[in-house]
Amino acid sequence: MTKLIASIVTVGEELLIGQVLDTNAAYLAAELTRLGIPVVRSLTVGDDKDAIRGALAEGMEHGRLTVLTGGLGPTPDDVSREAAAALIGSNLSVDADVLAAIKRRFALLGRDVPAGSERVASVPDGFEVLPNSRGTAPGLWYEGDTGSIVVLMPGVPHEMRAIFCEHVIPRIRELSGRTAIEQRTLLTAGIGETTVQRQIEAESHLLDPDVVVAYLPRLHGVRIRLTVTGEEASARLDAAERYVRVKLGAAVYGCDDDTLEGVVGHLLKWRGLTVAVAESCTGGLILDKLTNISGSSSYVMGGVVAYSNVVKQHQLGVDGDTLEQFGAVSEPVAMQMAEGVRARLGSDLGLSVTGIAGPSGGTEEKPVGTVWIGYADDHGTWAVKHQFGRGRRRNKEKSAIAAIDFMRQILLQS
Amino acid sequence: MTKLIASIVTVGEELLIGQVLDTNAAYLAAELTRLGIPVVRSLTVGDDKDAIRGALAEGMEHGRLTVLTGGLGPTPDDVSREAAAALIGSNLSVDADVLAAIKRRFALLGRDVPAGSERVASVPDGFEVLPNSRGTAPGLWYEGDTGSIVVLMPGVPHEMRAIFCEHVIPRIRELSGRTAIEQRTLLTAGIGETTVQRQIEAESHLLDPDVVVAYLPRLHGVRIRLTVTGEEASARLDAAERYVRVKLGAAVYGCDDDTLEGVVGHLLKWRGLTVAVAESCTGGLILDKLTNISGSSSYVMGGVVAYSNVVKQHQLGVDGDTLEQFGAVSEPVAMQMAEGVRARLGSDLGLSVTGIAGPSGGTEEKPVGTVWIGYADDHGTWAVKHQFGRGRRRNKEKSAIAAIDFMRQILLQS
Repeated sequence: MTKLIASIVTVGEELLIGQVLDTNAAYLAAELTRLGIPVVRSLTVGDDKDAIRGALAEGMEHGRLTVLTGGLGPTPDDVSREAAAALIGSNLSVDADVLAAIKRRFALLGRDVPAGSERVASVPDGFEVLPNSRGTAPGLWYEGDTGSIVVLMPGVPHEMRAIFCEHVIPRIRELSGRTAIEQRTLLTAGIGETTVQRQIEAESHLLDPDVVVAYLPRLHGVRIRLTVTGEEASARLDAAERYVRVKLGAAVYGCDDDTLEGVVGHLLKWRGLTVAVAESCTGGLILDKLTNISGSSSYVMGGVVAYSNVVKQHQLGVDGDTLEQFGAVSEPVAMQMAEGVRARLGSDLGLSVTGIAGPSGGTEEKPVGTVWIGYADDHGTWAVKHQFGRGRRRNKEKSAIAAIDFMRQILLQS
Repeated sequence: MTKLIASIVTVGEELLIGQVLDTNAAYLAAELTRLGIPVVRSLTVGDDKDAIRGALAEGMEHGRLTVLTGGLGPTPDDVSREAAAALIGSNLSVDADVLAAIKRRFALLGRDVPAGSERVASVPDGFEVLPNSRGTAPGLWYEGDTGSIVVLMPGVPHEMRAIFCEHVIPRIRELSGRTAIEQRTLLTAGIGETTVQRQIEAESHLLDPDVVVAYLPRLHGVRIRLTVTGEEASARLDAAERYVRVKLGAAVYGCDDDTLEGVVGHLLKWRGLTVAVAESCTGGLILDKLTNISGSSSYVMGGVVAYSNVVKQHQLGVDGDTLEQFGAVSEPVAMQMAEGVRARLGSDLGLSVTGIAGPSGGTEEKPVGTVWIGYADDHGTWAVKHQFGRGRRRNKEKSAIAAIDFMRQILLQS
């Protein structure tokens, strides 16, 4: 059997007018690469039956596997099904099971079955149905006599991802045998790319020379991707991970799909601790992140967004003289905010942020991007200063990450 | 002369492994569309000479203009120049002016001329040089006998954009005559795609038949894109916008780059009103959104994230009996939260959200996605119920948007 090589096709006028970024293509490229399947091309075409058929035919020329997203909706300009049928010279017919599933879905929601549902339930003869657990339009799978595979999935990202993970990945794994490539991405916070690289390369003779190390800087921290191919890939990956963890210590907070807020949530839950947060410049973003974790209500009590000094005083008990003497963006105010939110809300830990997000409001002494983070618990109160850049949203993001990581570092040490 | 129709080619392994999003393709698609040139396909290939040559040839088949980015760097795996030379059967030779410009650039920076500069200064015979004001690798322009145009630009986004704006746009304008296409996107909230479409098409005889209307559903609301080509495009676009605004009323909150939180910020600032927010299931997201707007500190006082019932009682003054009788996700609790945060923080308006974000915590009576939004001001207190879906993050986003839009609707009426 020939090795799997993949082409991606994305369908949608909104992509060809540059209105949205093609995140589906990037997602599929990353997932296929992770599965050890090289992607040789990625093509975007509009909602045009001939163009889509042509794109599928080109994909089949360039590799065994062609994965398409988009053009499977209920309206007449969704023509990927028709294009796929034309590609293999077959006809469309309504799949009774798919139609029944759509009707059940809307009955459960207490809504009428929308027009166009029969279109959505149409399947080109020769294609198998891949059920959609998040929406109505199913995925479609075709395996030709020559071994070519064509997969169609809807363009709505969360529906596409569900179908890909639940149905496409298992089928691909079966076809390609055990993958001989293994990857793991270690996630760090609070440490720059240069430092990460220097520390890892300091004793690189201890690192398996066949492990490929890639440094991927992100707003949220540097990611370190380790790739191993060949024999005993998994064990060698484990050894490489241990090496990196020894070199970087607590700067590594997790791997692959972990999130900083999920890891901190685990630490809090495991120790039976609750947290409350007092936010100024981050404006609610820290609490938003912490509460993105399902089950966070067991350790997040809540918090106060104190955008004005009056709220800092009245809701958090920050001292008016301290505000006047040191300013709202200062070490003592950060500490009083952390202590105040902890005392008022009755949590075990208090976390706080006060800073200048920008773009205006900076001074020579405290330029835009100056941020103080405070933390209080039974053992005392600490604060740390950061100097970020000029972009408002970037400053909010970086401050939120730094605050959550500050709490993580203290939890690890205590 | 045949009409200009464009294909985009982006080159880079990092795109085919999904490491980065293809922002160059989106930028070029948006700019070409704005110039009135339809983009019919966008293809990504790796750093492979034959693949790039093939991609350029395919591009030339599908339209008169093919725009490529990437593969023009100094290293041996940058092979777009070689592919372009092979495409038209010409040879590469070093351009003395380009090499001199590179040497000047590094002399000014006080650095040695890097290896590979001769590669960067190589130009396929038949191509013209488009100077790069931001870096070393120039753009390249080819016009064939049949009218086909091939443009190559480096992949570094800010260099590519500079070459595109400074050299490519003026040449394209000259070729295509004055641009005759105008677009505007109207943004709506709180109204579904089907309703939007039905209302706009209700009296479609009043709408200029040459205005193309596209409905683009997003998590944040349906976007309506109006496109007009030909004579008096701008005036006809204005008329079409008026028609849509009459049909949809206050559901339209803005156009093009407006944001809901920016529009609400304007309303608050203009009326000199302040707001405070009490958030439960949204966990800080409403305040995060409101404070993304620069200058929001003049109208956002802050708020309370009340994830636990204790915090709802102590920090917002929600009545314990009410909590017990109706539950935290209920109309009276939403109203008391809005009133409480307004009274405690001393703001003009109080906004609140309480709901079940999921994925767990739902009951038969109050399934996951049940959300109450409350609003309080001098004139009274109101609440409204929404039923969203099952995804935690989606529910938070939808609840935050619905709450901000609820405030906007009341502000518009009062």
